[in-house]
Amino acid sequence: MSLELSLNLATVRMQWKLPQAVEAAARHGFSGVAPWREMVQETGITESARIFKANGMRVTGYCRGGLFGAGGRSNFQAAIDDNARMIDEAAAIEAEGIVVIGGGLAPGSRNLADARAMFVEGLAAVLPHARACRIPLALEPMHPMYAADRGCITTLREMLDIADTLGNDGLGIAIDTYHVWWDPQLRLQAARAGKRIIAHHICDWLVPTKHMLTDRGMMGDGVIDFPAIRQIVEAAGYHGIQEVEIFSDYWWGRPGDEVLATAVERFKRVCQEPG
Amino acid sequence: MSLELSLNLATVRMQWKLPQAVEAAARHGFSGVAPWREMVQETGITESARIFKANGMRVTGYCRGGLFGAGGRSNFQAAIDDNARMIDEAAAIEAEGIVVIGGGLAPGSRNLADARAMFVEGLAAVLPHARACRIPLALEPMHPMYAADRGCITTLREMLDIADTLGNDGLGIAIDTYHVWWDPQLRLQAARAGKRIIAHHICDWLVPTKHMLTDRGMMGDGVIDFPAIRQIVEAAGYHGIQEVEIFSDYWWGRPGDEVLATAVERFKRVCQEPG
Repeated sequence: MSLELSLNLATVRMQWKLPQAVEAAARHGFSGVAPWREMVQETGITESARIFKANGMRVTGYCRGGLFGAGGRSNFQAAIDDNARMIDEAAAIEAEGIVVIGGGLAPGSRNLADARAMFVEGLAAVLPHARACRIPLALEPMHPMYAADRGCITTLREMLDIADTLGNDGLGIAIDTYHVWWDPQLRLQAARAGKRIIAHHICDWLVPTKHMLTDRGMMGDGVIDFPAIRQIVEAAGYHGIQEVEIFSDYWWGRPGDEVLATAVERFKRVCQEPG
Repeated sequence: MSLELSLNLATVRMQWKLPQAVEAAARHGFSGVAPWREMVQETGITESARIFKANGMRVTGYCRGGLFGAGGRSNFQAAIDDNARMIDEAAAIEAEGIVVIGGGLAPGSRNLADARAMFVEGLAAVLPHARACRIPLALEPMHPMYAADRGCITTLREMLDIADTLGNDGLGIAIDTYHVWWDPQLRLQAARAGKRIIAHHICDWLVPTKHMLTDRGMMGDGVIDFPAIRQIVEAAGYHGIQEVEIFSDYWWGRPGDEVLATAVERFKRVCQEPG
């Protein structure tokens, strides 16, 4: 009996390469995986697609696109081209979408408005190809602590404004608990997102957080109220699969099977909507 | 010739106690200081007041009040009483205001809404005393990465909503570049704040940031566009003093005079409105 749970493969990237990680996910009852591009490229696209199929795994998201302005204006077209290739790869592995993030400031830049404008411009440039390939782009707002170096689009509200500006067709929204749990507008903006929500990632916020990137928490070990956020997401109209994605030096240092068993147990115990 | 610059004494708290820090601030041309309560209590309130006066220093803010819900419901009244005492102390040292922050989640709580509600309730409880003492409460939204353990009120918008709810009388807004620089609504909400802005703190965001609390940057060493934010603050109607407040293991390890000389030089070179 498989769970409505997907495994973002970054969660066990230090333990396993793609083939082993996917087999382990299947063994632990996950019904999907979300692979990162480096892992797919290492294994090969055709072989990766075969592995997903052989293990009966959905591919809930391909990580990660966007970041259009992060290389500056001189690398802008290259970023667009790279996102277009990524769409082809996503189609080849039959991914249900691509996770797209804002990207940080261009080297030497202090202009967030520029970074944001380039993100919108880049997105507009690749969107026709994404639509043609029927690969939805799941726009993921990132926690504001990543605004400078990873995700210049930090709030659901801002991501939805961008999706509205571009007409929404071919675009969706990814809600990651780690990135949005603090947002006083979470309920309001999730309701606004409605059926546009196409991904729900789960990961806990630890107190204290010892490293900004690699000290994310297993569900239940931190302060995020997962049932409350699931309720918000379901009320908005998304009843689909959840995806566990944890960047953690601690969990990367544990046996992969322990990580997956823990994630499954916590998902069942901590992450369900109440009632 | 003194500068329109105040020194938050936490910036040199590892190097100096209050008397030495205030004398150093005067020597380097600062026209104000913002002391922390522990430092004032260590030196004594009457003696601290004398030192500020003797050095011709404004007391631009007394740090820091609020945090009403951080101890949970059982400590709520104690937090209110403590804030009331802090208002008396602020009056005694002739502080121009008290910096007030949201505080984190109660121990064991995952309910940010509760923390936020207790903040508003506590603020309402101390506000009559603050008004009677003519000590403005400078409400400071904190970076969302502190939502769990320090500042459950994370955006200018939310702080302004709270100030509106409580009628604004006796309340002001503190804008700290470190906390708000990422906010896509910064310009809009600062304009909404208008004359309610009574404090403008400066501190840079380093890339990478190695520690969430103690790796803040000297102006110019990070990615914050200080002239742009100063322009936003001035356009909103605040033309007053800026206050440098840097929590930094690096700068705490440097000689205090070097820290102040650097802050003054950077303030002159990096933090002015263009044109």
